[in-house]
Amino acid sequence: MLSRLELLFSINVTGMKKSVIRELLKLTQKPDIISFAGGLPSPETFPIDQVADLAREVIREDGTWALQYGPTEGDPRLKEAIAGFMATENIRVKPENLLIVSAAQQGLDLVGKVFVNRHNPVIIGRPSYVGAIGAFRSYAANFIGVDLDDEGIRTDELRMLLKQMRLEGNLPKFIYTVPDFQNPAGVTLSLKRRQELLALAREYQILIVEDTPYRQLRYVGRHLPTLYELDEGEGIVISIHTFSKILFPGMRLGWVMASTPIMEKFIIAKQSMDLCTSALSQAIAYEYFKRGWLETHIQENIALYRKKRSVMLEALEKYMPGHPEISWTKPEGGLFLWVTIPENIDVDRLFYQALEANVAYVSGTGFYTDGGGKHAMRLNFSYPSESQIVTGIQRLAEVISGNLDI
Amino acid sequence: MLSRLELLFSINVTGMKKSVIRELLKLTQKPDIISFAGGLPSPETFPIDQVADLAREVIREDGTWALQYGPTEGDPRLKEAIAGFMATENIRVKPENLLIVSAAQQGLDLVGKVFVNRHNPVIIGRPSYVGAIGAFRSYAANFIGVDLDDEGIRTDELRMLLKQMRLEGNLPKFIYTVPDFQNPAGVTLSLKRRQELLALAREYQILIVEDTPYRQLRYVGRHLPTLYELDEGEGIVISIHTFSKILFPGMRLGWVMASTPIMEKFIIAKQSMDLCTSALSQAIAYEYFKRGWLETHIQENIALYRKKRSVMLEALEKYMPGHPEISWTKPEGGLFLWVTIPENIDVDRLFYQALEANVAYVSGTGFYTDGGGKHAMRLNFSYPSESQIVTGIQRLAEVISGNLDI
Repeated sequence: MLSRLELLFSINVTGMKKSVIRELLKLTQKPDIISFAGGLPSPETFPIDQVADLAREVIREDGTWALQYGPTEGDPRLKEAIAGFMATENIRVKPENLLIVSAAQQGLDLVGKVFVNRHNPVIIGRPSYVGAIGAFRSYAANFIGVDLDDEGIRTDELRMLLKQMRLEGNLPKFIYTVPDFQNPAGVTLSLKRRQELLALAREYQILIVEDTPYRQLRYVGRHLPTLYELDEGEGIVISIHTFSKILFPGMRLGWVMASTPIMEKFIIAKQSMDLCTSALSQAIAYEYFKRGWLETHIQENIALYRKKRSVMLEALEKYMPGHPEISWTKPEGGLFLWVTIPENIDVDRLFYQALEANVAYVSGTGFYTDGGGKHAMRLNFSYPSESQIVTGIQRLAEVISGNLDI
Repeated sequence: MLSRLELLFSINVTGMKKSVIRELLKLTQKPDIISFAGGLPSPETFPIDQVADLAREVIREDGTWALQYGPTEGDPRLKEAIAGFMATENIRVKPENLLIVSAAQQGLDLVGKVFVNRHNPVIIGRPSYVGAIGAFRSYAANFIGVDLDDEGIRTDELRMLLKQMRLEGNLPKFIYTVPDFQNPAGVTLSLKRRQELLALAREYQILIVEDTPYRQLRYVGRHLPTLYELDEGEGIVISIHTFSKILFPGMRLGWVMASTPIMEKFIIAKQSMDLCTSALSQAIAYEYFKRGWLETHIQENIALYRKKRSVMLEALEKYMPGHPEISWTKPEGGLFLWVTIPENIDVDRLFYQALEANVAYVSGTGFYTDGGGKHAMRLNFSYPSESQIVTGIQRLAEVISGNLDI
């Protein structure tokens, strides 16, 4: 072993930690445990037979393309299909403003590489998606958290924060947000807040990174415009999307939209990351679009997850102890909801009791960079079955009840 | 557009340039041009029907795994298969020292992220693979070049350089090398040099990054041990491998081997880059291994490329003007050879004359970070057909002849 090895590691790595969530997930894989901890789409939704036949056809008929290196920007046919899909959301995007990525996580890594110098401030929600925290941390970002409420990120807090940061000559590079059915909190940024967020970004001339993997999975209420749409081509918003939740994750496929000067940097940066995204994955996704299967498939996913969400909300209503400090969000879409528990209960300690009772969640603490989340947990409703959801919530409610002050 | 946008970009990006090679490649795609410029494997080698049927079977029978997220470390079955493959090269690697990556370029990005702070010195060959230069540049590395000759990187030059760098208190993080049939020069690091390189790395306690994508494609001569093998588990060598050249590139699949403390950092860093490599690609590659098809397939590739290499060497011998300053390497494997031309000819200017004559190459200048390579070019022999190789070399020889001093 090199004696100097520790000295050789970069500063990017010193901040890196093994994902606590990932380590805990390993504990939740025992067969008897009902896990609300993961974030996986349900394999029930995978269109296995369709994709199996499609893959065979695509390789047979187009193998010299699908098995070869592809352009860094992505398969032009898939880009066009996605642009058409975006048009159904009132977004008119030119091919040069759309980059195919190896799923949304690569989009986050691109944002980190292209914008974050070590110790640069970056604004995130309290709580925020752990993968985004990990990506920006890997460029040694400094995180500044802004609270969320039921309408998403608190723009009043953000306004004061930005004013202060400008005074200190230390404006952030960007604000990171998951506007639709946020992971982990399950809340949706209201239209008013979307407009305020954009106005603030415009005023302070900073970027907004919109990460919206669940957007198409809305179960109740009406679609809100994306920040990218509201930006109206001004170039303030970088918008990150993925096929992982609307089709399946195993292809590692997503797309990013941004203004032309940003896109130029993204393309060069992506080239240094993986040269190009799998031509095979792209060819399969393109054919899936072409046959018009995606829209039907999304509707099927929505039906399945809508039911699971209702089952979880009903179970929470029925089994959770009535206590002024116990509450949960009621997400209009996505895969997660967020439960707040009384201040006298430490959610990390509760986790082991829950495991004993054969139920698992993710502690809120993993979604904060500043020690928050000690009395909150994320519950996933997409992966467990309906009966598992009911039983699991019963178990969880009992564990919480056992910890309440009487 | 944000007025402050230029201020928001990171220092990583300021050094990034559009790949000149990539831009020039666009010029070479006109139908009449015979291009020696690309680096693509020949689609003739793609086992299209095998993979088409395999993909269908794998998805049908294993779809809930193959279409889902996978572990960041990689599919344990594929890791075991690769460990078996490595054993045929005298490498005994434990699963925890082997990481599946989204092809070799991601391996290079991992090395950059985990080891390079801005302005850290990194030693590369003169010339070096552009993708490695791009990856390390995206972490703002400082490059220090060491010349290559027919035996690979010059360890005598390296020895003096390291001595000097230690005196200056500025030792490099690592030495980057493509020991087998180097891209672009086509030269192979001799056994003696491999041992000297390791001895130097050991003496100065720095790492060696071994990038060996073509290793299995040897057409003449005997296999030399990898640096990873010669390291004997001391942890000095990080070894990067890919399926792109031995199977096909469209899956984006490779693997990295390193000591346990390095691997721990790589896994966390990979998580922030793309969470995991495509489970579908991994399942296909695993089945390809399991059926014992890979060895046969590699032998077929070797037969095809060996012939193309001979055709190119014979054509060079036959058509290139006899001139003391014109020479070319005779690679024992891989996809490329390197032609040196007289000092009075600027290879970048010659490029446009070559295009006029309907033949293309890559100028040497793209493979240097210090302005070298003005009188050299890289020729690829894997992609063009045998008859294209003969005609293309005739055309190239005429263009060069027209530029010689008489």
